[in-house]
Amino acid sequence: MYPLTLKNKNKTNNHVIWHKVLVSREDRNRLNKHKSGIIWFTGLSASGKSTIAHATEKKLFDRGIRTYVLDGDNVRYGINSNLGFSPEDRKENLRRIAEFSRLFVDAGIIVLASFISPYKTDRDYVRSRFNGDNFMEVYVSCSIDECERRDPKGQYKKARAGIIKNYTGISSPYEEPENPDIVINTEHFDLEDSVNKVLDLLEKRKFIQ
Amino acid sequence: MYPLTLKNKNKTNNHVIWHKVLVSREDRNRLNKHKSGIIWFTGLSASGKSTIAHATEKKLFDRGIRTYVLDGDNVRYGINSNLGFSPEDRKENLRRIAEFSRLFVDAGIIVLASFISPYKTDRDYVRSRFNGDNFMEVYVSCSIDECERRDPKGQYKKARAGIIKNYTGISSPYEEPENPDIVINTEHFDLEDSVNKVLDLLEKRKFIQ
Repeated sequence: MYPLTLKNKNKTNNHVIWHKVLVSREDRNRLNKHKSGIIWFTGLSASGKSTIAHATEKKLFDRGIRTYVLDGDNVRYGINSNLGFSPEDRKENLRRIAEFSRLFVDAGIIVLASFISPYKTDRDYVRSRFNGDNFMEVYVSCSIDECERRDPKGQYKKARAGIIKNYTGISSPYEEPENPDIVINTEHFDLEDSVNKVLDLLEKRKFIQ
Repeated sequence: MYPLTLKNKNKTNNHVIWHKVLVSREDRNRLNKHKSGIIWFTGLSASGKSTIAHATEKKLFDRGIRTYVLDGDNVRYGINSNLGFSPEDRKENLRRIAEFSRLFVDAGIIVLASFISPYKTDRDYVRSRFNGDNFMEVYVSCSIDECERRDPKGQYKKARAGIIKNYTGISSPYEEPENPDIVINTEHFDLEDSVNKVLDLLEKRKFIQ
C-alpha cells in the first residue's frame, strides 16, 4: 500500500493511488482514553452472561468508556439470521462474530460479547483472531439445574420437550473453559458483585484506569 | 423484556430476569456529541470511494468524531471471506455489511461504507435496513475508461483477460444510483474537494456541527 495524505496525493498523473488507513486503533484508543478489546462471556443459556454484559456496559458508559454488547439478541436476529444451531452453523456464527468484533476493537470499542459458545475449539478460534493482549475470557458458571429452573425464555422447557433441537446442556454439549481469565459463579446471582469482577479484570489488564 | 438496573434486579426469587439494553444509541450520540449514521459510497472499482472514505475519516477523527471505514479491505478478507462475486454472493455480502453496519451505528459511530454495490435492489435493501434519517448515499462517479486507466490493483487488466470473472463494468453491470444524496465526480480527481463535499453533507444533515 502506498502512503496517502491530503497533501501527498499524486496530482501529476491524475492516478488515484491506493488508499491507506489513516486512523489506527492506537489513535482511537488515545482519543477515547482507554484501550479497546473484547471480553468473551461464555456459559449456559440463562447463566446470566448478557445480564452481566449489559450491566457492565452501563457502568463503563457512565465512566465515558466506549463499549458495545454483542449477544444473541442483536446478532442472531440480524447478521446471523440465516444460521441455525448445528455444529457447522455454530462455527460459522462464531467465525462471523469474531470477524466483526475485530472491526469493533479496531474502531476503539470494548466489546462485551455474550454467547453460549459451547465448544472449546470454537472459542479457541475466536481467541486466535485477536492478539493475546486484547482478548479476555469470562466463564459465567451456573449449574444446568439452576439455569433450567430460571428458564426466562421458556427454552429449556421446549428443549426438554424436544421442540428445540441441539439445545446446549440438554441435547448438545457444553465444554467448560479450562483457563478463563475469570470465573463468575452465578448459582446465587449477585449482579453488582459480578459486574465489579469484570471491571476489576479490565483495570488489572489496564484497559481502563 | 423486563426492565433491569443494578437496583431493581429481582433478588427475592433468585431468578435472573431478562436483561435489557441499558445504553441506547441516543445515549452514545450524546456522549460523542454527534449523531451516528452511515454514508454509503457506491461506484466503480478505482473510482476513488475508499480513498475519499479514508480521507474523510481522518478529517472527522481530527475533530473528535467517532467513525469507521468499512470496505473490501477489512470486510472481504474477514467476515465475508467465504463469499464470491456471483449475484447471490454479492447480495449476501451486502446483507451482512448492512447488518453489522447497523450495530456500528447503534454503537454511536459514523460508518463510511465503501463498496462497489452495483445493483440498485441491493443498495435499496441496505437503505431499508436503516431509518431514512441515518442513511446517506454518495455516488462516486467516474467513467469506466478512466477507472480502467487507473487500475491501481491491476484488476481491470485481469478482468479484460478473463482471469477475474464477474468484474463490475467489464463483465458484470453497474447500475447508477437514481437519487443519491450527493454525486462526486472523480474523473479529474480532487481529493480535498471530494472530502469537503462529504463533510458538507454531514453538516447539512446535522450529523456533525
